[in-house]
Amino acid sequence: MFSIAVSGHFMVAHSFVGEMFGPAQNLHGATYAVEIELRRAELDGNGLVCDIGLAKRLLDEVLGGLDYRNLDEAPEFRGRNTTTEFLAGEIFRRLAPRIKAGALGPGTAGALASLRVSLRESPIAWAAFEGKPG
Amino acid sequence: MFSIAVSGHFMVAHSFVGEMFGPAQNLHGATYAVEIELRRAELDGNGLVCDIGLAKRLLDEVLGGLDYRNLDEAPEFRGRNTTTEFLAGEIFRRLAPRIKAGALGPGTAGALASLRVSLRESPIAWAAFEGKPG
Amino acid sequence: MFSIAVSGHFMVAHSFVGEMFGPAQNLHGATYAVEIELRRAELDGNGLVCDIGLAKRLLDEVLGGLDYRNLDEAPEFRGRNTTTEFLAGEIFRRLAPRIKAGALGPGTAGALASLRVSLRESPIAWAAFEGKPG
Amino acid sequence: MFSIAVSGHFMVAHSFVGEMFGPAQNLHGATYAVEIELRRAELDGNGLVCDIGLAKRLLDEVLGGLDYRNLDEAPEFRGRNTTTEFLAGEIFRRLAPRIKAGALGPGTAGALASLRVSLRESPIAWAAFEGKPG
Amino acid sequence: MFSIAVSGHFMVAHSFVGEMFGPAQNLHGATYAVEIELRRAELDGNGLVCDIGLAKRLLDEVLGGLDYRNLDEAPEFRGRNTTTEFLAGEIFRRLAPRIKAGALGPGTAGALASLRVSLRESPIAWAAFEGKPG
Amino acid sequence: MFSIAVSGHFMVAHSFVGEMFGPAQNLHGATYAVEIELRRAELDGNGLVCDIGLAKRLLDEVLGGLDYRNLDEAPEFRGRNTTTEFLAGEIFRRLAPRIKAGALGPGTAGALASLRVSLRESPIAWAAFEGKPG
Repeated sequence: MFSIAVSGHFMVAHSFVGEMFGPAQNLHGATYAVEIELRRAELDGNGLVCDIGLAKRLLDEVLGGLDYRNLDEAPEFRGRNTTTEFLAGEIFRRLAPRIKAGALGPGTAGALASLRVSLRESPIAWAAFEGKPG
Repeated sequence: MFSIAVSGHFMVAHSFVGEMFGPAQNLHGATYAVEIELRRAELDGNGLVCDIGLAKRLLDEVLGGLDYRNLDEAPEFRGRNTTTEFLAGEIFRRLAPRIKAGALGPGTAGALASLRVSLRESPIAWAAFEGKPG
Repeated sequence: MFSIAVSGHFMVAHSFVGEMFGPAQNLHGATYAVEIELRRAELDGNGLVCDIGLAKRLLDEVLGGLDYRNLDEAPEFRGRNTTTEFLAGEIFRRLAPRIKAGALGPGTAGALASLRVSLRESPIAWAAFEGKPG
Repeated sequence: MFSIAVSGHFMVAHSFVGEMFGPAQNLHGATYAVEIELRRAELDGNGLVCDIGLAKRLLDEVLGGLDYRNLDEAPEFRGRNTTTEFLAGEIFRRLAPRIKAGALGPGTAGALASLRVSLRESPIAWAAFEGKPG
Repeated sequence: MFSIAVSGHFMVAHSFVGEMFGPAQNLHGATYAVEIELRRAELDGNGLVCDIGLAKRLLDEVLGGLDYRNLDEAPEFRGRNTTTEFLAGEIFRRLAPRIKAGALGPGTAGALASLRVSLRESPIAWAAFEGKPG
Repeated sequence: MFSIAVSGHFMVAHSFVGEMFGPAQNLHGATYAVEIELRRAELDGNGLVCDIGLAKRLLDEVLGGLDYRNLDEAPEFRGRNTTTEFLAGEIFRRLAPRIKAGALGPGTAGALASLRVSLRESPIAWAAFEGKPG
């Protein structure tokens, strides 16, 4: 099984609902360093999992939809705690349809075995979501 | 599949028995940078794999049982080579019963698909153990 | 010249005033990975720049005063852009009097040649402030 | 499942054929930071996945066959794009027979569940290949 | 003294002349992870060393002039060994006049105390050049 | 001013004398990730601060004198606390005479403006010593 991975980052404000979150119930923020790993069993005719330039562009486009925002005011997250693991899943959900629509080149979507999205939130913690984007 | 991970470290002395270990047969030591990754298929009602604060506290408590010790004199390791991979398994064995006893919150233990413990021993080497803690 | 350094982190929300800040004029946030480096010409009688445990405790205490806050609502920052370089200077200003008051042990303050505070805000950017804390 | 990993690096020149590669069609180069992860279900009698010294030596020997070369002129890569993911697979193909021939010690090859080879090409991209070396 | 730093990277082929370079006399290549640090004594009216967006754009523009090239065929390097430390100095020489021409905003050039350019060439080696860009 | 830096590591056991050291009074250990930075004002005729291969060899030789040892039993450290900052100074003291004796090539010793030795002991702490080796 082959993998490629590219990375980027975004910076947001948010707060969490629930006593268990302690001081994170306050409005605070985070830099999320994001990495996506794409896996497939065989390389394509160019010797690629997919065009890494397309992968980086797609990632930056999806992260651009979150960057420099207060997630507490984002209509799409109303009533949700935008935890790191939730955001990993959310970025997966935003990437998957674009991949299926061909953003990583024709033929890539069908060949992908899995997509893993990881978000480092601090020097001591990260979260991830992994699934099949097809 | 969702993951969260938290990290810590501990510093110990030890030596190994067996000619193949060469100079590591001498009493020496290591800083182990430890990361635990917890995986589950669905997030809980708060949008979490588990409370990251509880995970960090549990990890620090388990590492506290090893930190600043000479493992050659630890009764629990008598007759064992405390290699990096052995220690990864040992930390797993110390975490699992506490997770089952509820250290990561009620309901977390049953939901976990796997627990991975990794120990970086130097800039060029690390080891890990992964299993189901339930 | 000898140095020791310890690190920590904090997570805040804020926004900037001024057109040049572009999308950073929106309320957003950051994880700041902080490192302080303390320098002195000669080691003390214990072979130390200073007790690293005290340095870590002092850093965590100062970062605790910023962590999980919306800096836009912090009275002490009214009318200031809390840029990364400004925050590096601010943390220096909070550390210096405590060091002078003996937080790093008696005799340490007078012996320090410099204190450097650096804040990494993302995988591609950091800022720092360096001065004499005495 | 236990893992150990060791790392090294190599530095090569190469170019790619295909319009999609854009400026990477020019002769350019890369530093590849390489990590191999070896996995097995049970530790051997010494408490090891395998002798980490042997693993490091084997990795360095295989990377030595690529280091300081222009891959465009390497006969073994004629007609291939030596992409990062291709090179990860290639290093796997060079490691596997040596492991089977006993380079990691007698008994190791048969016990290995998988071998993962990853190559970081830049601060924002890496690729990997994972398979069973037996 | 305040600092800000931004980073980028470029990938080139080259070779060195001189027996002491051993196998590096062959055409090979490198990924250079580049960081520039800008220092000034006082922050500007916006609380900045300089606009970090301008600094990143300038760095990327200068690195773009080197990226994906075979430095052995670059007319500007004829007769020079493009060692890592030489390239650090070269990037400084390319940044300085643009900074003086206002690329980091009006007033920044005169206020800068120093500019440091560092290039990481591998996990175990880096080089840097530091000077006054004015 | 130009710099080059190379890195290595060593793994030792030791303990500290003095109540302030708390649990570090027990025999424990550390992995020290070491980096040496060499600075000079002008490059030599080959475009170098010094031959990086010689620098790496010298560093490994000096670290080899400490690696896999119990520093509490090292005659040369009798009565000293082998703190991280002390060890940084000690490695400087071992490097300097070899540099003066020509280990980095003829002419290098006299040209060096400074030598900085840094030791990372854990993910959250490091120490350094910097001086003129001549």
